[in-house]
Amino acid sequence: MMENKNNFVKEITNIEEDFAKWYTDIVIKAELADYTDTKGCIAIKPYGYEIWENIQKYADSKFKEAGVKNVYMPVLIPESLLNKEKDHIEGFAPEVAWVTIGGQEELEEKLCIRPTSETMFSTMFSKWVTSWRDLPIITNQWCNVLRWEKETRPFLRSREFLWQEGHTVHETSKEAEELTLKMLDVYKDVIENLLAIPVLQGNKTEKEKFSGAVNTYTVETLTRDGRALQSGTSHYFGQNFTKPFDIKFQNREGKEEYAYQTSWGISTRLIGAVIMTHGDNRGLKLPPKVAPIQVVIVPIAGHKEGVLEKANSLFTELNKNFRVHIDNRDNYSTGYKFNDWEMRGVPIRIEIGPRDIENGVLTLTRRDTLEKKEVKMENAEKEIESLLAQIQQNMFNECNERLKERTTVAATMDEFIKNINENQGYIKAMWCGDVACEDKIKEETGAHSRCIPFNEEHISDKCVCCGKEAKYMVVWGRQY
Amino acid sequence: MMENKNNFVKEITNIEEDFAKWYTDIVIKAELADYTDTKGCIAIKPYGYEIWENIQKYADSKFKEAGVKNVYMPVLIPESLLNKEKDHIEGFAPEVAWVTIGGQEELEEKLCIRPTSETMFSTMFSKWVTSWRDLPIITNQWCNVLRWEKETRPFLRSREFLWQEGHTVHETSKEAEELTLKMLDVYKDVIENLLAIPVLQGNKTEKEKFSGAVNTYTVETLTRDGRALQSGTSHYFGQNFTKPFDIKFQNREGKEEYAYQTSWGISTRLIGAVIMTHGDNRGLKLPPKVAPIQVVIVPIAGHKEGVLEKANSLFTELNKNFRVHIDNRDNYSTGYKFNDWEMRGVPIRIEIGPRDIENGVLTLTRRDTLEKKEVKMENAEKEIESLLAQIQQNMFNECNERLKERTTVAATMDEFIKNINENQGYIKAMWCGDVACEDKIKEETGAHSRCIPFNEEHISDKCVCCGKEAKYMVVWGRQY
Repeated sequence: MMENKNNFVKEITNIEEDFAKWYTDIVIKAELADYTDTKGCIAIKPYGYEIWENIQKYADSKFKEAGVKNVYMPVLIPESLLNKEKDHIEGFAPEVAWVTIGGQEELEEKLCIRPTSETMFSTMFSKWVTSWRDLPIITNQWCNVLRWEKETRPFLRSREFLWQEGHTVHETSKEAEELTLKMLDVYKDVIENLLAIPVLQGNKTEKEKFSGAVNTYTVETLTRDGRALQSGTSHYFGQNFTKPFDIKFQNREGKEEYAYQTSWGISTRLIGAVIMTHGDNRGLKLPPKVAPIQVVIVPIAGHKEGVLEKANSLFTELNKNFRVHIDNRDNYSTGYKFNDWEMRGVPIRIEIGPRDIENGVLTLTRRDTLEKKEVKMENAEKEIESLLAQIQQNMFNECNERLKERTTVAATMDEFIKNINENQGYIKAMWCGDVACEDKIKEETGAHSRCIPFNEEHISDKCVCCGKEAKYMVVWGRQY
Repeated sequence: MMENKNNFVKEITNIEEDFAKWYTDIVIKAELADYTDTKGCIAIKPYGYEIWENIQKYADSKFKEAGVKNVYMPVLIPESLLNKEKDHIEGFAPEVAWVTIGGQEELEEKLCIRPTSETMFSTMFSKWVTSWRDLPIITNQWCNVLRWEKETRPFLRSREFLWQEGHTVHETSKEAEELTLKMLDVYKDVIENLLAIPVLQGNKTEKEKFSGAVNTYTVETLTRDGRALQSGTSHYFGQNFTKPFDIKFQNREGKEEYAYQTSWGISTRLIGAVIMTHGDNRGLKLPPKVAPIQVVIVPIAGHKEGVLEKANSLFTELNKNFRVHIDNRDNYSTGYKFNDWEMRGVPIRIEIGPRDIENGVLTLTRRDTLEKKEVKMENAEKEIESLLAQIQQNMFNECNERLKERTTVAATMDEFIKNINENQGYIKAMWCGDVACEDKIKEETGAHSRCIPFNEEHISDKCVCCGKEAKYMVVWGRQY
């Protein structure tokens, strides 16, 4: 068994040695995804896809509570449509894929595969909106999008990825802005309560905002190696799209007016966030609420009389209320199985062997702390329910502690550089609002502005970079 | 009110006059979908998409009961991969769209947007399968696909459509064939029990089968105007893909062997089937189980004291167990609302006015028969539950009757032509198995072979076309 374990662990790169390699090892070994013959695109395998299904289910129910209606728009967008909003096309043109041949004929106008669908939704909204009575329209689609990235990494930056994109139109700017923030709160809910990852909310700087937006709000997370990950964004467009797309309505006073728009999205990148934030040297570590398998039963000495029967009946019982798997494989040792399920991040492992059966007990092992607990068989369900809740909370707390530890304050560039080199993480520093300083900080530290947080603190009166009067406190970080 | 009604009905083409026009009228007026700037592609609107979500929910739970795991594969398939199976590429090459530019550069190898994903799944299976222990793999994806159709019609034949494609690999041909048929039964379940449309099950002829399949099984439905609609297919591939894609495994005897494969799919075409099979001159008619709104509450004389309050409290009560909508619009007459909800196919309409409140009753109107029923307010929930079940059953029965009426037998070509010209519908006729006869029948009657039904009847000894010895009884029909 010892040998097995060592061989096993060797297969995953040490997390301190090479975080990037550790990450891709987990993706492949835990069977979340695999590389394909289409460069830059992954195949999401059942274990990875089920995480996405759990995210979808949770987020979609929150959307529906908020009055969101799902729709589906074409994957192909004519070039002329994409070109209608100047900033938008400038931002996306370099990274789109173009269909130029259809049904063996050269197309008159090339079509891009949607990198995002503001232009398509806007052109439909212009057909659907005529009166204030048609507003608001609050729609969303779950779909695939494509961006021709040069460097890709499974889940985090894939040419094709899955996401939801919400698109809404409103009578007033106030209503639109409120909706933008409401959706940002749904994202906070999803990431904190489902994925057990604390988020930082704020708005993006002019430089980092979405192409075509008036304002981009973001939820940012921090990975185990101290890098920032943009995990969801919500954009307020004002009339930036309604004007070129002619989305006008007759208002309550009978006058024609351009409407106000928003869009917002989260993607399969969140699976990458889960891996990078919770994982450790034993592999993946999944928060119970999103884990495809919450409890795995490993029978010990399965060849002995009564063991498999008891394990199977336990499975049947637990399967009513939890997502359970029983590992009946006869070609692997118990030790291998233990390591395997730890690597796959299953929150609770149950061992059940002849002695346990005799004593009427089960041994539960937590993936997060590796603590073992012997419980009475008749209490199994209650114990598991409570343990899953504890694990979920503990995983969140652990990340939250790390987030605090890795958030530092810098009043000068020297402090900034020292902190980020020693600690990675978030750096809080004052900023004058000038993009030249933002560019210079990036050049000297490798850190991008993450956001101007909603809860701003006052650190000093001066911009960390140029020393002129500061306008904002910004959180900075190196990013994935 | 009368005037309103007449104007309203005028907006929809008469179903007997022009069925095709009636169909697209319904799609647009009931707000199921809309045309877009991308030729041949539609936008599925909330009311249409919710029908698809209900189909997905039902089918996906049946898939999961059958052990199916969901995955996601790239939307782009390299040309070399698509070309690996000869029949497959011959079938699909004429109708694919090609990406030739990515990130502003000409691609070395062009990529097609998946018309279906056998080639992509096969190449992944060849990586994932090495031993009999890896089998079976039973996977599915819910996704978009694209086929460059020349003539399109919303839902029925759209360039882009949404579907699920199941792909499986097995140790034995027997297991694979059983899975193929099992999935065909899931489709029958979905279409008969959820959509209230009776199906004909059978296998396709050599000419009509899927490009690359050994055998294609189908579920066929019949529209109100007597045309056949292929509504779901399940394909047994044998080793047709596992050989060119090298999907080999070590069998239980330690020998290398090629595996056996299947694929199966249903699509948003089913929404078209619902419209075409159930609709009438008043518009859409939705089976309760799949209807986005099962019950609509229309307050009468809403300005009178207590009416809106009572209607709202009824809404709150019913909304716990049914999908309910309350029509509080103040800019439409009651008559208009009645017509509007009939046109949108809502199974039950509830009228609630001052007199009803006084008498403690509600008036329920069925969309299928237009019958009205007065029920006591306190019994509303029970009455609605029972009425929805009756409507679901009645809609199925009605279609089943029509199916029987429109299925005729032909022993000669004269009979065949007479029957199909008078009656459209299904024609049962014997066939020698020769593709020349199949082609000739199509030429002379416009009818394609639908399938060789599982329940074959013996009509005569001779082929309806050439008079030679008959091998099969085939069901024929003109198709959408």
